[in-house]
Amino acid sequence: MSAIYDRSEVTRMIVSAKVRKGLKWADVAEQVGLSKEWTTAACLGQMTLTKEQAGIVGTIFDLSDEAIAWLQIVPYKGSLPTAVPTDPLIYRWYEIVSVYGTTIKELVHEEFGDGIMSAIDFSMDIDRQADPKGDRVKVVLSGKFLPYKTY
Amino acid sequence: MSAIYDRSEVTRMIVSAKVRKGLKWADVAEQVGLSKEWTTAACLGQMTLTKEQAGIVGTIFDLSDEAIAWLQIVPYKGSLPTAVPTDPLIYRWYEIVSVYGTTIKELVHEEFGDGIMSAIDFSMDIDRQADPKGDRVKVVLSGKFLPYKTY
Amino acid sequence: MSAIYDRSEVTRMIVSAKVRKGLKWADVAEQVGLSKEWTTAACLGQMTLTKEQAGIVGTIFDLSDEAIAWLQIVPYKGSLPTAVPTDPLIYRWYEIVSVYGTTIKELVHEEFGDGIMSAIDFSMDIDRQADPKGDRVKVVLSGKFLPYKTY
Amino acid sequence: MSAIYDRSEVTRMIVSAKVRKGLKWADVAEQVGLSKEWTTAACLGQMTLTKEQAGIVGTIFDLSDEAIAWLQIVPYKGSLPTAVPTDPLIYRWYEIVSVYGTTIKELVHEEFGDGIMSAIDFSMDIDRQADPKGDRVKVVLSGKFLPYKTY
Amino acid sequence: MSAIYDRSEVTRMIVSAKVRKGLKWADVAEQVGLSKEWTTAACLGQMTLTKEQAGIVGTIFDLSDEAIAWLQIVPYKGSLPTAVPTDPLIYRWYEIVSVYGTTIKELVHEEFGDGIMSAIDFSMDIDRQADPKGDRVKVVLSGKFLPYKTY
Amino acid sequence: MSAIYDRSEVTRMIVSAKVRKGLKWADVAEQVGLSKEWTTAACLGQMTLTKEQAGIVGTIFDLSDEAIAWLQIVPYKGSLPTAVPTDPLIYRWYEIVSVYGTTIKELVHEEFGDGIMSAIDFSMDIDRQADPKGDRVKVVLSGKFLPYKTY
Amino acid sequence: MSAIYDRSEVTRMIVSAKVRKGLKWADVAEQVGLSKEWTTAACLGQMTLTKEQAGIVGTIFDLSDEAIAWLQIVPYKGSLPTAVPTDPLIYRWYEIVSVYGTTIKELVHEEFGDGIMSAIDFSMDIDRQADPKGDRVKVVLSGKFLPYKTY
Amino acid sequence: MSAIYDRSEVTRMIVSAKVRKGLKWADVAEQVGLSKEWTTAACLGQMTLTKEQAGIVGTIFDLSDEAIAWLQIVPYKGSLPTAVPTDPLIYRWYEIVSVYGTTIKELVHEEFGDGIMSAIDFSMDIDRQADPKGDRVKVVLSGKFLPYKTY
Amino acid sequence: MSAIYDRSEVTRMIVSAKVRKGLKWADVAEQVGLSKEWTTAACLGQMTLTKEQAGIVGTIFDLSDEAIAWLQIVPYKGSLPTAVPTDPLIYRWYEIVSVYGTTIKELVHEEFGDGIMSAIDFSMDIDRQADPKGDRVKVVLSGKFLPYKTY
Amino acid sequence: MSAIYDRSEVTRMIVSAKVRKGLKWADVAEQVGLSKEWTTAACLGQMTLTKEQAGIVGTIFDLSDEAIAWLQIVPYKGSLPTAVPTDPLIYRWYEIVSVYGTTIKELVHEEFGDGIMSAIDFSMDIDRQADPKGDRVKVVLSGKFLPYKTY
Repeated sequence: MSAIYDRSEVTRMIVSAKVRKGLKWADVAEQVGLSKEWTTAACLGQMTLTKEQAGIVGTIFDLSDEAIAWLQIVPYKGSLPTAVPTDPLIYRWYEIVSVYGTTIKELVHEEFGDGIMSAIDFSMDIDRQADPKGDRVKVVLSGKFLPYKTY
Repeated sequence: MSAIYDRSEVTRMIVSAKVRKGLKWADVAEQVGLSKEWTTAACLGQMTLTKEQAGIVGTIFDLSDEAIAWLQIVPYKGSLPTAVPTDPLIYRWYEIVSVYGTTIKELVHEEFGDGIMSAIDFSMDIDRQADPKGDRVKVVLSGKFLPYKTY
Repeated sequence: MSAIYDRSEVTRMIVSAKVRKGLKWADVAEQVGLSKEWTTAACLGQMTLTKEQAGIVGTIFDLSDEAIAWLQIVPYKGSLPTAVPTDPLIYRWYEIVSVYGTTIKELVHEEFGDGIMSAIDFSMDIDRQADPKGDRVKVVLSGKFLPYKTY
Repeated sequence: MSAIYDRSEVTRMIVSAKVRKGLKWADVAEQVGLSKEWTTAACLGQMTLTKEQAGIVGTIFDLSDEAIAWLQIVPYKGSLPTAVPTDPLIYRWYEIVSVYGTTIKELVHEEFGDGIMSAIDFSMDIDRQADPKGDRVKVVLSGKFLPYKTY
Repeated sequence: MSAIYDRSEVTRMIVSAKVRKGLKWADVAEQVGLSKEWTTAACLGQMTLTKEQAGIVGTIFDLSDEAIAWLQIVPYKGSLPTAVPTDPLIYRWYEIVSVYGTTIKELVHEEFGDGIMSAIDFSMDIDRQADPKGDRVKVVLSGKFLPYKTY
Repeated sequence: MSAIYDRSEVTRMIVSAKVRKGLKWADVAEQVGLSKEWTTAACLGQMTLTKEQAGIVGTIFDLSDEAIAWLQIVPYKGSLPTAVPTDPLIYRWYEIVSVYGTTIKELVHEEFGDGIMSAIDFSMDIDRQADPKGDRVKVVLSGKFLPYKTY
Repeated sequence: MSAIYDRSEVTRMIVSAKVRKGLKWADVAEQVGLSKEWTTAACLGQMTLTKEQAGIVGTIFDLSDEAIAWLQIVPYKGSLPTAVPTDPLIYRWYEIVSVYGTTIKELVHEEFGDGIMSAIDFSMDIDRQADPKGDRVKVVLSGKFLPYKTY
Repeated sequence: MSAIYDRSEVTRMIVSAKVRKGLKWADVAEQVGLSKEWTTAACLGQMTLTKEQAGIVGTIFDLSDEAIAWLQIVPYKGSLPTAVPTDPLIYRWYEIVSVYGTTIKELVHEEFGDGIMSAIDFSMDIDRQADPKGDRVKVVLSGKFLPYKTY
Repeated sequence: MSAIYDRSEVTRMIVSAKVRKGLKWADVAEQVGLSKEWTTAACLGQMTLTKEQAGIVGTIFDLSDEAIAWLQIVPYKGSLPTAVPTDPLIYRWYEIVSVYGTTIKELVHEEFGDGIMSAIDFSMDIDRQADPKGDRVKVVLSGKFLPYKTY
Repeated sequence: MSAIYDRSEVTRMIVSAKVRKGLKWADVAEQVGLSKEWTTAACLGQMTLTKEQAGIVGTIFDLSDEAIAWLQIVPYKGSLPTAVPTDPLIYRWYEIVSVYGTTIKELVHEEFGDGIMSAIDFSMDIDRQADPKGDRVKVVLSGKFLPYKTY
């Protein structure tokens, strides 16, 4: 068996096994004991797993010890192949940033002053919101406000 | 007084008046009678106002009749000067799309099947979430799920 | 036989088999029971097939079970290698967007108000239009109008 | 009054007058005696008008003789500020090209052989299609098929 | 022998065989019975061959039946790896478009009115022009003029 | 009257005067005594005029002495606003370079060996070629072949 | 006097006044009572000033009340005109990120685990470091480590 | 065993072995006898090793003689896959350059005059700075000031 | 008279005056007492002048005191409008870097080891080299070699 | 042994053999009987070798007959992976073009009139220039001046 040179190879192994086995991310998350959002991001090569988490994931997706070791290494993050995403689902998020970008900026600063909403001390929930006019995707983002400091 | 050729000129007039007068978006929204998110986006040139809404906004920001007419025209949307935003607050949102993009895609598809979360039949709430470890920015996004159809 | 890591590998298998076997998309569509436009897009990795549709496609193109499983997974969409297409046929469409872009925007908004023509709740027909001065390509696009909402 | 250096200045004058006067493209087209699609494109700086057409347009939008002369000059075409459009309505068209690009290519070639659909000997109709589930934008594109020749 | 997934693989086979066998494009063209310009473009993956032409080319370059089948499929056109070519010979052509672009536009429109010179109903001849001050490359381009139509 | 800072300002003056006066490039060229191709390129800011040529051009377009002085300065060349041209007429030339780029390269090298076709010691003729199936644009390019040297 | 539409206009006023008056950033910082690094960034449009700080800066650079109001508004950050900086001094910093980027990543993660060095809760000192072989620029960067969290 | 064509292959071997063996850069550096910053950069393909250093690194990571030879060849530098980095940790550094770029420029020039801070005669220290409010990453950069010369 | 906000405005004043007065860079350089290469670069906004040099340049080009003050400020360097230059003369230099880039790298490293040729401690001479086969441009570049250091 | 499809594969073979064998470009050049600059460029895939030269190079680097045949084919030139080079040594050359670009343009035109310095009829010498303050890289570029012609 050949060596693994890159976390993205492990991501591809996981995605390939998931298709082959017909697994669901929600079930993977339950076994890992964390949210489906974090767990999916981790399996897709964006987060770092602990030894124990990596072991569970390895078992689920039939990974080798070397692949399990790679899951515990901090990955080079960024999951998209182009700066402007071509996939329609992901593009809609990019469009929200493009259309509402200055609005978000104004409102966060009006409420909090100069600073940012952290994308590190951050969590996300994605859920179905039943609606008679058609169900909705409800997303809750929560990020710590980090103020710019003077010095 | 010279003619207005572009909605972005009206946006600049609004922003300039807002600084001069020390106004708040939340107060503007209250006068318009809609959410602060939609109202701010509209004032920043991303949404179309009704005649009545445009009149209120025009009064608040001392706009000419011509500028008020422009507020009722559908604008060319997109609020950012570069494809990858340079402003740290807005970049963090771009980073969320970049890091979590494939995660969002997997989870929405797992829950809903093939389709997108609409960025048109869409609303956003941005609020302060008190937290002893440091307050957080809480954002709720709600977009109708639109399934791809076979034909 | 090695594992499949990516939907694009299945697309390549399909295209390769199509050349080898000398098949036509119209015939594939007929067997699948859907329009030639949707069926072709699905075979080229842009749409998600049901189990039954995937089975039919798999039989037509001699695909393995694993490849057939991949056809049922929502793909990362976007079929072109560059942001501005180099192929003359496809470029002409890009040119129509470039030259007529603001015209389309003005006329849709004049008729419908602010909103978009959906590219999801969308269908397309491509047909030959006989014409003594030279036959024409006739394309009918139909997308649901989705209005922006105030909130 | 200062000289006009560029067709885009005339476009801006027309758009500015249209907002000021509250005109509709359909009415402009009727006066010009051509389709609303061609007329709008022409007024937005993408087509060349005859002397007579330019005169009518000049009267509608209160243009100077110099501006009317510019309308009769072939413009440098391309109506969008960026290669990938940021406006959601226009982006959806770009997305159709991105997602269906290879599909369009396959089907046109299957029907006609190697060649292109002309974007020059071309016409477009944009209409409302009533639909109980929500009205639709119906677009008909018709372009002459131009075959590649061997030589 | 592994399957062929892409016309570019056939192009690479042809170029590789040409180097190995020391062939000339002019001789290939003579055997195909067409101009050296069209024949070379076809062999380099930019044109579609008939069954007979593909058979001749296949014999010349020792191609498999599968490769010969690919030659009869309309290729995804565009022969250069970057939008601005780095190769000095090809860059000089790009430079001609860059420096003379607006000149070409003015003169074609002055002579023909609004429209384009077709790149589809098009032929090209490249020849040596003996000159005592140093031989010259003489290129003749001939493309049908296609006028924009009003509708 | 304000100072001129840039050759492009003179180009804009010339184009503006040409529209106002309804002149033709062919007539300008005749007065200058050179080809219409070179003369147009020079007037559009891509070539350097002699004192005498600049004087003639200045008279034709009512230029100031300062503008006439600028015509005699070597310009920063490049006439297009984007790397990939959006104007359909000019794009077709770009497409020829894109589709035929490697063909041109192969055939020039087959005939001449390694080197380039000069874009400096270069001339171009653009003419109407009458054709019963529709008139054609005939373009003759002639550039000195410059061989790479070993040293 | 015309209205101010943009923080960048205030930055230009400050830089213009600084040249005219021959001021030093270190002296400005001393009057503001903060570090020269933060003060310079603020004057160059990257930080938000308090009312008092803005007043001091306004006095130093002879700014109008409107300009002083703008200094208290959170700016759209990003100080460079291109994604890859052309200025040699700034490029060297970009080069450090390019050459040492993966090194920085490895060492921070080895010491701290997965997370980032904050660019918000961040300070920078730039000083002269005397050295007999040629003085050195010594820069100390200090940013809070922010760990990624599981959830 | 196949030949090595590129330094990046050696980098991949080193990173792969590091994961497999669970090594730390600090320990590698200690064995090499240099700083962890330089050693890591060298192992990641950005610096050139002496024969002795390459031998030590080769032993640590089980490299072949050919790989050890490559470590002594000056590499093509640049460690990141995109011009704007997508990884959050590295992006924060890019953001510092973007936000503080003109500040750094002003302050270095105020202290030293025209010139640059060398990125060649340069060193970097990355350390943990204990802080009750959360530990900090402290980075010290030291680069020789190189003045522009007149000549 | 309006304020100057940017060094590039001074550059434009100098270039405009140079055209108006018909001056030569060689003569300017002689008056400044430095090489024509450095002097031209300085006048074009790439170098910083001493008070005395700025005074001489100001007299030659009739600059205001404010413009003369700007000449003594370190400019934001980079003289070209695009990353890949469109001007044929300057492009040829870019082409040399593109074609010979790896050659230069190999030969400098073979002679000097790892490091760079300084572009700061650097001088350039551009001269005519008479040649019966056509005169040549002879350029001598001299840059200090700066070795990478281990630490 | 598999077929060669591309000159870049031969370049990689040469570079790989050079590392394995510890050769120097200067020695290769001596055996070929040409300058080290041209020879290195040729070995790195930028120049075309004669049969005899290719044979010598093939012997030095143990190339197959097929690889030797490829050395005699005109390559697709351009040696760098990105438009703006990331390698510091090569970037400094790009920076020289960026900073001095307009200076070079002015001085060549002042001396020669409108035209270019050829990058084809061109030679380069790279040498060590001993200097007590630190040795320097001395580069002499010599390119034929090619004047633009009127026609």
